[in-house]
Amino acid sequence: MHRFSKKVSMTVVKRLPKYYQYLTDLLLNDIEKISSRELASLMGLTASQIRQDLNSFGGYGQQGYGYNVLELREAIKEILGLDSDYTCIIIGSGNMGHAIANYERFKREGVMLIGAFDVDPLRVGTVVGNVVVKHMDELEGFVKNNEIDICILCVPRGVGQQVATTVTNLGIKGILNFSPLDLDLPDDVVVENVNITDSLFTLTYLLKEVTDPE
Amino acid sequence: MHRFSKKVSMTVVKRLPKYYQYLTDLLLNDIEKISSRELASLMGLTASQIRQDLNSFGGYGQQGYGYNVLELREAIKEILGLDSDYTCIIIGSGNMGHAIANYERFKREGVMLIGAFDVDPLRVGTVVGNVVVKHMDELEGFVKNNEIDICILCVPRGVGQQVATTVTNLGIKGILNFSPLDLDLPDDVVVENVNITDSLFTLTYLLKEVTDPE
Repeated sequence: MHRFSKKVSMTVVKRLPKYYQYLTDLLLNDIEKISSRELASLMGLTASQIRQDLNSFGGYGQQGYGYNVLELREAIKEILGLDSDYTCIIIGSGNMGHAIANYERFKREGVMLIGAFDVDPLRVGTVVGNVVVKHMDELEGFVKNNEIDICILCVPRGVGQQVATTVTNLGIKGILNFSPLDLDLPDDVVVENVNITDSLFTLTYLLKEVTDPE
Repeated sequence: MHRFSKKVSMTVVKRLPKYYQYLTDLLLNDIEKISSRELASLMGLTASQIRQDLNSFGGYGQQGYGYNVLELREAIKEILGLDSDYTCIIIGSGNMGHAIANYERFKREGVMLIGAFDVDPLRVGTVVGNVVVKHMDELEGFVKNNEIDICILCVPRGVGQQVATTVTNLGIKGILNFSPLDLDLPDDVVVENVNITDSLFTLTYLLKEVTDPE
């Protein structure tokens, strides 16, 4: 599996979570097999896109049979790395930190929140998700004593880069970045940005396009 | 301005919020002019990308002078539709709804939260952001009596499509979708998805790529 994924374009990678979601829904509806055409129409793709996407990971399904939903879901789960568990910490326990900490889906997919950190004395000692917020001063010790896979960054823009540099210096390789800035980090660190402000601005742009009579 | 933007690719559109953010930062640092080269290195783009991006909106800047930061920011603000104000409602007042409702940046850019709705009797009557949560039964009347530009959708996946269909039938044209599903809506409705689960899965995929010794 893995040697294939090396070559895969981000466009395809970005579609993998959707495959996983749709296949999970199919299973929940007791659908055991599906043709690329059926899956395509479900996902708003073409059958050949589906075949190409899945071939880039080695190919699944049999001519004339279609895909075994359970097998394909398991394969994609593995490709997405969701066959492993992950430990994560949240830095920044404001509203967004709380929202993410309480995101049940993360836990269900094996991403376990084991720590939360903040600098605000009013937040330190409070509970987010299932953990007690520690002061940032305790971050280094905590990360050294616990293997942390993912840092969920929910700090203000102004301190985002500094905090991200700190956690990557401590050896954390994955950052889910909710802070509204682009992070400049070493190549062996992976960052996935969730920039809500950018999404809002894209929406206002598109809204202008559809509503502006001009 | 507008007639240019019609032709613009989503790749460029997706970069516009970043231009806006970086130019805002430059202004805050009292920088009045910048060359495409300088702006490019700031944003991790090439100077020619910058010139192409901005030319697709009619072109700004003068040969040998560079860009007037204030003028360019104002132009991009207008292109993004941020020279207008917007009214928005939040549907689903859980953790994510709360996080978004308290997102100061939205207000600062003229996106005003004027209503919030939920079906959970424990949430109805509580306050999110600066509004009191109403029951979904009140949605139709509220939308008819208030011009709503944007619906911020924070409901569970299972009801997302139904709620989205309801609000678009009520005439709302813009949806910022935090519910983890793809919405099937009329072409004159614009949707921007913020799918946190997809982002997490992309991160675990990339994390596997960088950490897997294979």
